[in-house]
Amino acid sequence: MSELRKDPITGRWVIITSDRPLRPADLAAERQQPPADLSTCPFEPGNERYTPPEITALRDFGTRANEPGWWVRVVPNRSPALKVEGQIDKRAEGMYDIMNGIGAHEIVIETPNHAEELAVMPESHIRDVLWTWHDRILDLARDGRFRFVMVFKNKGARAGAMLAHPHSQIMALPVVPFHVQEELAGALEYYRYRDRCVFCDLIAQELADRRRIIEDSDHFVTVVPFAQRFPFETWILPKSHESDYGRLSSTDAGELSRVLKRTLQRLSQALDDPPYNLVLHTAPVNLDPVPSYHWHFEIFPRIAHTGGFERGTGFYINPTIPEETAQYLRDIKL
Amino acid sequence: MSELRKDPITGRWVIITSDRPLRPADLAAERQQPPADLSTCPFEPGNERYTPPEITALRDFGTRANEPGWWVRVVPNRSPALKVEGQIDKRAEGMYDIMNGIGAHEIVIETPNHAEELAVMPESHIRDVLWTWHDRILDLARDGRFRFVMVFKNKGARAGAMLAHPHSQIMALPVVPFHVQEELAGALEYYRYRDRCVFCDLIAQELADRRRIIEDSDHFVTVVPFAQRFPFETWILPKSHESDYGRLSSTDAGELSRVLKRTLQRLSQALDDPPYNLVLHTAPVNLDPVPSYHWHFEIFPRIAHTGGFERGTGFYINPTIPEETAQYLRDIKL
Repeated sequence: MSELRKDPITGRWVIITSDRPLRPADLAAERQQPPADLSTCPFEPGNERYTPPEITALRDFGTRANEPGWWVRVVPNRSPALKVEGQIDKRAEGMYDIMNGIGAHEIVIETPNHAEELAVMPESHIRDVLWTWHDRILDLARDGRFRFVMVFKNKGARAGAMLAHPHSQIMALPVVPFHVQEELAGALEYYRYRDRCVFCDLIAQELADRRRIIEDSDHFVTVVPFAQRFPFETWILPKSHESDYGRLSSTDAGELSRVLKRTLQRLSQALDDPPYNLVLHTAPVNLDPVPSYHWHFEIFPRIAHTGGFERGTGFYINPTIPEETAQYLRDIKL
Repeated sequence: MSELRKDPITGRWVIITSDRPLRPADLAAERQQPPADLSTCPFEPGNERYTPPEITALRDFGTRANEPGWWVRVVPNRSPALKVEGQIDKRAEGMYDIMNGIGAHEIVIETPNHAEELAVMPESHIRDVLWTWHDRILDLARDGRFRFVMVFKNKGARAGAMLAHPHSQIMALPVVPFHVQEELAGALEYYRYRDRCVFCDLIAQELADRRRIIEDSDHFVTVVPFAQRFPFETWILPKSHESDYGRLSSTDAGELSRVLKRTLQRLSQALDDPPYNLVLHTAPVNLDPVPSYHWHFEIFPRIAHTGGFERGTGFYINPTIPEETAQYLRDIKL
């Protein structure tokens, strides 16, 4: 069973996957993306037997589970970092804290079409992906052992994708990820001082300023963050205050799919279809809506190796000017 | 002039290098390590004119500054992320905080020998590098504008090195890097509760347990951290409590050079001379010694692309078992 270990200095939890761990001797070789051989891709229609049985799917009327006919399909990860069975067992090892690796780890196969990335799907299909994320969050939140449901997408080998077929991942965790914790703490401090949501204030200032705005629709906005860490880092936020992505309305999901598509298209054109990570930051589950937090997507194109010391210091040097990046992305003709 | 921008949510400072920024259009192409053409390597003896005038150097008696004869040479970075001239000017832009990019950015050329990496240098030479870091910290700390002196080394293009010639970097900053801030805050909380340094407790437990120990000398210890974030992440700590690397004794520097060399040799043999980042975590400058903090090196071999979502969540999945990695490294014959 995998375990969660807590760094005693910062309180950061780390997953140690002791189920099928990599041996140190295996690690000299780089992880490679397997060639795109469709016959063995476990996410192709017709290959449903290569994945564990599906959790849910959007599929044509009359087709059966684990057979073709689906257009979005959710399956358990075959090598999950965390396992769903068992009770949470917190224990100490001297000064260290350990928790057994309880959690869910699911794959959202976003399309039957091996080559159809999120940026090029029809908006209605993107909406179905966004709505699947939403449904999985609500379903997993029913499990009282979980504190957080993490939705993320790694596109391209350099962004950490093991398979080329378009997919995203869902992890239900018994702890809140560190960056989200930092955001929650910082946003709460701001709220206590000003009685306002820091994200709402940020959106209001960005909308007045315009220099970092990339997309601006009725209910959503895409911005380059003021203190951008990485070149082309981009956020999408709902304009109205909402801490919980699980409370997204069906109508708003349609609008969000359009904004997400246009944002990804801009990045794709600017950077020639770059590898990227997309992460949903949302409030911990099983909480009432929070006045101090605000859900959003963060998108990180992987265009250059980070300088390295970021990893050890948490300090970022961005060699681009956020306002210039925003203008560049805004000027792309869609 | 570059500027420091503060993320309004978490309080994290980011450097935006607006002096000679990369244009968005330039970023589609990956940063490449230039070929090792010794005649144009600015760090070769005889090429001293290609760097700004040296700040200090260890050199043969009778040789002149900015000429050959040195064995460790410190020069300003030709494209510094921060500049030394001027006063710190903090200002607001609506809700955002900005500081002008005051700081120092120096390069430590570790050897005249293009191919002689830290892991293979004689111990006495490594000691001179470690002592140069120490001297630069003390010298830069005299400047009251600085809060922190960051020492780090990127080895290999994939770890962020722009040049192959062995070198490390020193940055004096008007702010404390985020990870160090997190450590300082967590360590202070621990100290308030227990009246002990969390690192000292950690070292005592590791020395009793032995499973994660890689090197153990009179005054230093190399461990794999209990909540290891990345495969082969390794820390070196002084056994006796000391918050400030600037207070390292000359004798201890000799012992530390031996421990560092042996640690790097083990990593090099295990992973076939991997790219890596080495970062010094030490107390902010211009403070009295702190009872709650403990300086240390953190070393991160870059053997696999991180999964991607770490970047957006601060949550790490380590596919190896720390105790197994430690044993593997310990068993390597030196």
